[in-house]
Amino acid sequence: MTHSSILLPNASHLRKKGKIVEILKIQTEVLIAIHEFLYQEELLQLMPVIVSPITDPLCHPVYEASIKYLNQRLQLTKSMALHKQIAISTLDVKGIYIVSPNVRLEKDIQSDNHLLEFSQLDIELRDASTLEFMSFMEDLIIYMLAKVRDRCKKELKILGAEIKIPKKPFQVYSSWDLRSEFGSAFKSQITQREADLFWITDFEREFYDKEDETRRGHYLNYDLYYPEGYGEALSGGERDYEYEVIVRKLEERNQSLGDFVPYLELAKAAMLGPSAGGGLGIERLIRFLTKRPHIREITLFPKVPGEPIFL
Amino acid sequence: MTHSSILLPNASHLRKKGKIVEILKIQTEVLIAIHEFLYQEELLQLMPVIVSPITDPLCHPVYEASIKYLNQRLQLTKSMALHKQIAISTLDVKGIYIVSPNVRLEKDIQSDNHLLEFSQLDIELRDASTLEFMSFMEDLIIYMLAKVRDRCKKELKILGAEIKIPKKPFQVYSSWDLRSEFGSAFKSQITQREADLFWITDFEREFYDKEDETRRGHYLNYDLYYPEGYGEALSGGERDYEYEVIVRKLEERNQSLGDFVPYLELAKAAMLGPSAGGGLGIERLIRFLTKRPHIREITLFPKVPGEPIFL
Repeated sequence: MTHSSILLPNASHLRKKGKIVEILKIQTEVLIAIHEFLYQEELLQLMPVIVSPITDPLCHPVYEASIKYLNQRLQLTKSMALHKQIAISTLDVKGIYIVSPNVRLEKDIQSDNHLLEFSQLDIELRDASTLEFMSFMEDLIIYMLAKVRDRCKKELKILGAEIKIPKKPFQVYSSWDLRSEFGSAFKSQITQREADLFWITDFEREFYDKEDETRRGHYLNYDLYYPEGYGEALSGGERDYEYEVIVRKLEERNQSLGDFVPYLELAKAAMLGPSAGGGLGIERLIRFLTKRPHIREITLFPKVPGEPIFL
Repeated sequence: MTHSSILLPNASHLRKKGKIVEILKIQTEVLIAIHEFLYQEELLQLMPVIVSPITDPLCHPVYEASIKYLNQRLQLTKSMALHKQIAISTLDVKGIYIVSPNVRLEKDIQSDNHLLEFSQLDIELRDASTLEFMSFMEDLIIYMLAKVRDRCKKELKILGAEIKIPKKPFQVYSSWDLRSEFGSAFKSQITQREADLFWITDFEREFYDKEDETRRGHYLNYDLYYPEGYGEALSGGERDYEYEVIVRKLEERNQSLGDFVPYLELAKAAMLGPSAGGGLGIERLIRFLTKRPHIREITLFPKVPGEPIFL
């Protein structure tokens, strides 16, 4: 034997297991219900992109994650935001979705709700508005929660978790109003206070979320939040798609145009069009439904920021 | 504008589109039918692993694809073979599955059937034998083909593709017999000759496929192949799980034990158990069903070995 045995303590995560079978049964039902709903809505399913010359720049700091192939540097996908906008602009269909794994090598995150590697349900609807996407997402959430509540009675009981079905429309808050009421930590305050899923709208963030033409500095975007302190569920928005607007917004954010060459080429060729969409974190959804104190508990292979990775 | 316009020719792939909507509609139906079948069979769905200290060593040459996080080197997943064996050994359930994207930076591949990035349907059944897994997979294939034939009549007509439903059991060939008949290029010969899906069994390859205890040098593994020249569909096998056997087989293959530390720790702690499984390539399946001359045609974001990558 040439290898050391330092990692055996980590195996205890696999050995004790907890209620992982019940949690994964709920995950399986969640995913099936999502596929059922999106199939009924006639969305097309695309396969994920893992490496690409371009990816979402995000608006918080992460370490670089890239590889080299021949003469090209390929980044690991932080989200499929740019790819799904390109896809829906290319395909003459109502909408698309992808179960998309992302890698984000977080810096300085002390959180019970972050993993370095996680999956998003990424949806993009052609020609949709903010309100249309929000309504679509509420229907999906309500359909999925009802299915899981009906099909997972035993597992929910074992986990001590109850599912409450929210009513449409969900409550909507503006980030500006919440910042006035709670200060800069408004997200963690409001998720603790609320009793049902709710939306926060109008965040200044990544360049691709559509700016309100009549109110510069305001944005046609939204986050969906869980109640009871479980935090962010989904992030999304309408998209800007005109070349001059995209270039201006990249420059305002001090981002290099060179990091987005193929995306900019498509915008310049008028090959992007109007859409709205969002990404729903699967692991956070499962944590919310199973009421686990830390997101690490819902997967066999957790990758927690700042901790050594076992598998 | 600081970026160059060299990439515009590549955008033509997106502009001409071909029959991509019909192809993606068939992909959507394929994936829904697979989820339906596996749900009825009560398999649990796990989320994919994209980066890990360990991955499948494969048995053909690829360039390294890894990133660094803190003090650890993490490899991009070439397949979830090791992780799914660990998962099914940990979970007391009939079986698991994952829609698992893989990155393989192929060297020297001239092929119409390879992408650097693709997705596998990865399945692993607890305590299953080779014959049990092959039968399970035949049922899945027949179920899925029948659904797609019924639900995609219009798209199949537009694509000029017909779906023929194979009968159980599929034909089985030993790799030894085929090598005698056709020589070393037997795979490309036999896939051209056959008119229905078929199995090839008993390959000497990666360490984790189970060696026949009574006939050393023979293996309890299998590949599923498409007819009409469309090549390999699935690769899999029963698994070796005993520490001493795994160490011997790694050493026989001149592979470093240090590359598999956490996996070996689990084997040493008797935390691996008997299972059988396989990985079915999604893009190759869609290519076979839609009868495209090259696998690049079935995705908006193809990554072909040796070619520049646009998106």
